[in-house]
Amino acid sequence: MPFVRKAANRVANPRESSSHMKARVVVTLKNGVLDPQGKAIEGALKSLGVAGVDSVRQGKVFDVEVTGADAASAKAQLTAACEKLLANTVIENYQIDI
Amino acid sequence: MPFVRKAANRVANPRESSSHMKARVVVTLKNGVLDPQGKAIEGALKSLGVAGVDSVRQGKVFDVEVTGADAASAKAQLTAACEKLLANTVIENYQIDI
Repeated sequence: MPFVRKAANRVANPRESSSHMKARVVVTLKNGVLDPQGKAIEGALKSLGVAGVDSVRQGKVFDVEVTGADAASAKAQLTAACEKLLANTVIENYQIDI
Repeated sequence: MPFVRKAANRVANPRESSSHMKARVVVTLKNGVLDPQGKAIEGALKSLGVAGVDSVRQGKVFDVEVTGADAASAKAQLTAACEKLLANTVIENYQIDI
């Protein structure tokens, strides 16, 4: 079974034991938290004649390159980053896509 | 063909002619544009002991509620919103998910 042997070699290859991954972290305000910036954008869009926009809420996005053994450990690092710095968990939610 | 007739009725139903949709607009800096805010976050994460983060680039996200006849017309409105207000197309890209 040459295919299986090759796959086993790949897993054991130390050069692939840590890899670069691209992740996106989206931080948004929790429901019920006032968003004056979003309200201002909503008003500005109405003034500019863009129809059909009912509400706008603004958040932040972080495109992060992470090095980790696997996606799970990279996600754990990003969760730590969110809790410590990227999001204010009192008023914001975060979502990590990796 | 009862299924086809039903589908035709749905399209003609005036109560469904305009609907509320949730869309997410992500605005990110173009490649090559300096991002000092991202660099500062990168440095702060290193200081805080979050390992494995190689680079951070910050962008903006807008959660928008739109009313439109269909997804295509809502997307056209959002494209107008991006071009006029949400993104600076000289240095930023935008992506609309609806």
